[in-house]
Amino acid sequence: MPELRKDPITGRWVIISTERRKRPSDFRLESVQITADSACPFCEGHESMTPHEILAHRHPGTNANGPGWDLRVVPNQFPVLRVEGTLDRQGEGLFDKMNGIGAHEVIIESPRHEDTLATMAEGAVEQVLWAFRDRVQDLKRDRRFRYIIIFKNHGLAAGASLDHSHSQLIALPIVPREVRDEVDGAHAHFESKERCVFCDIIRQETADGKRVILETPDMVAVAPYAPRFPFETWILPRRHQASYEEGEHQDFAALARVLGDILRRMNRVLRFPPYNLLIHSAPLAEPAGEYYHWHVEIIPKLTKIAGFEWATGFYVNPTSPEEAAQVLRDARI
Amino acid sequence: MPELRKDPITGRWVIISTERRKRPSDFRLESVQITADSACPFCEGHESMTPHEILAHRHPGTNANGPGWDLRVVPNQFPVLRVEGTLDRQGEGLFDKMNGIGAHEVIIESPRHEDTLATMAEGAVEQVLWAFRDRVQDLKRDRRFRYIIIFKNHGLAAGASLDHSHSQLIALPIVPREVRDEVDGAHAHFESKERCVFCDIIRQETADGKRVILETPDMVAVAPYAPRFPFETWILPRRHQASYEEGEHQDFAALARVLGDILRRMNRVLRFPPYNLLIHSAPLAEPAGEYYHWHVEIIPKLTKIAGFEWATGFYVNPTSPEEAAQVLRDARI
Repeated sequence: MPELRKDPITGRWVIISTERRKRPSDFRLESVQITADSACPFCEGHESMTPHEILAHRHPGTNANGPGWDLRVVPNQFPVLRVEGTLDRQGEGLFDKMNGIGAHEVIIESPRHEDTLATMAEGAVEQVLWAFRDRVQDLKRDRRFRYIIIFKNHGLAAGASLDHSHSQLIALPIVPREVRDEVDGAHAHFESKERCVFCDIIRQETADGKRVILETPDMVAVAPYAPRFPFETWILPRRHQASYEEGEHQDFAALARVLGDILRRMNRVLRFPPYNLLIHSAPLAEPAGEYYHWHVEIIPKLTKIAGFEWATGFYVNPTSPEEAAQVLRDARI
Repeated sequence: MPELRKDPITGRWVIISTERRKRPSDFRLESVQITADSACPFCEGHESMTPHEILAHRHPGTNANGPGWDLRVVPNQFPVLRVEGTLDRQGEGLFDKMNGIGAHEVIIESPRHEDTLATMAEGAVEQVLWAFRDRVQDLKRDRRFRYIIIFKNHGLAAGASLDHSHSQLIALPIVPREVRDEVDGAHAHFESKERCVFCDIIRQETADGKRVILETPDMVAVAPYAPRFPFETWILPRRHQASYEEGEHQDFAALARVLGDILRRMNRVLRFPPYNLLIHSAPLAEPAGEYYHWHVEIIPKLTKIAGFEWATGFYVNPTSPEEAAQVLRDARI
């Protein structure tokens, strides 16, 4: 019998399909292969192919926009929003618009073309996490911005246009809808119970265990109760904190370790799947301290999303989170 | 300068991107080609390959589940929900679930493999619209159901697994989230203004004209103000009515005409694109009569949806609706 399950944060229902049940070997998997590319703009030595760097972790004695770095952050060459200008909010009868003001940056995570977050040293992944934090800390001083999304598209099927390991950051003058729903849901839970819903989830999941993929003293990785996608994975810090950018040394060290571990498990079980990674953090200018709780979502791209799913917001997931968690938990890496 | 636009119903913001602007010829278009298939379960003569028919428009003197029909409705062979059983709602600590009770049916729109809604006679398309209505009228008597989604995936990239023209219907024991947002937004508009937001949109769009694709005495087809996708098109009945299944003869006749016309325009301009079609109608058991307004959404599948878009609910659209409307309006068919 298929099951309808409700996400306790957003209230979104999903179908866990039994008729269409899929094990890892049933997915027509597309493996991500990194192809050598002598014209890759993100490789060391090709710094002139990107806009000027905003931030870089450089070796002593090297010059900005030249070789000798571990990580660079540059503006996106084809930004979806522009940083210069005013919002100029306007109505047009029923309709509302504003100028597309925002920031769109690229975090180049390694100077080496073949590196991935799954293969990089823990310290290097931690450097990436610090760069995310530093960019958010800087951009949040701009009062035009309400939300900063950090995300990674890994592999063509997940939307990546370049193979070289990178993430993106978009600062927005509005709070996007999925985030709004999560924040509002978490707020309602807090209003009703005086507790953070994410802390409640961590308590219930770690006590129960069947959806836990791995635990460390600082982080918990779970297959969420009502996942939209097969093998959807959340990494939650145990310590309650609303905003990613307020993370401390031990948070980023722990996240780097768990992130690499989870990605290696996915590579093992799902044969190097394309994936999207998202950091969910509190909106910039809202007092979400008590009720929101930052976390990371990793979504391997295994199924085609039929039109009806994004158009209705109603997802059919052919793999139960209990099965996904077990497979990832048992993966030998 | 890119523009941020807000959908007046759901409050969803989208980016209309200028940096990434795309005209029809810029999309790497995948044309839908219908391939002959001697084993197609939906072709006339192959009735034994489907579950028994629930409804059929049959020629006089023919037998159920045999040849001699214009249209058949059958249960989906791999249903995402099952019609037998009770909902058996349960809590599990924080979490909520229920049995996956529902109906999942397939509307086979023609006995001929090569037909499409764009090439079928207006009368035949109208028969399809009546079949949708009749199935909803029948299923809504089952009090377990809260919502019925009717949708069509046309072409592999839009999620179709069979070429032969068909739509699907899913009856659900919950109201899916995108529908919930639309209904709640329409309700809030009505509470504030005592007017239907869709009627307001029709008035403003037809007065303004720049996003109108075509008008008839009964229907208006527009590119919505804040579309998530390039060439997204809505068909709205002028007459205020909450539920599709309460439509009358003139509504379905008019919709059949406009639907065929729009699909032929899309075929012309976008070279036979894959698309999703959805009917948005009021939830079954809610008094939405005054504030909701049924309509049809057609979404050609032209862009890859990057993970971040469905995960954040934040869409970047490279084609403005004004440009899309003009191209479709001017299409010679």
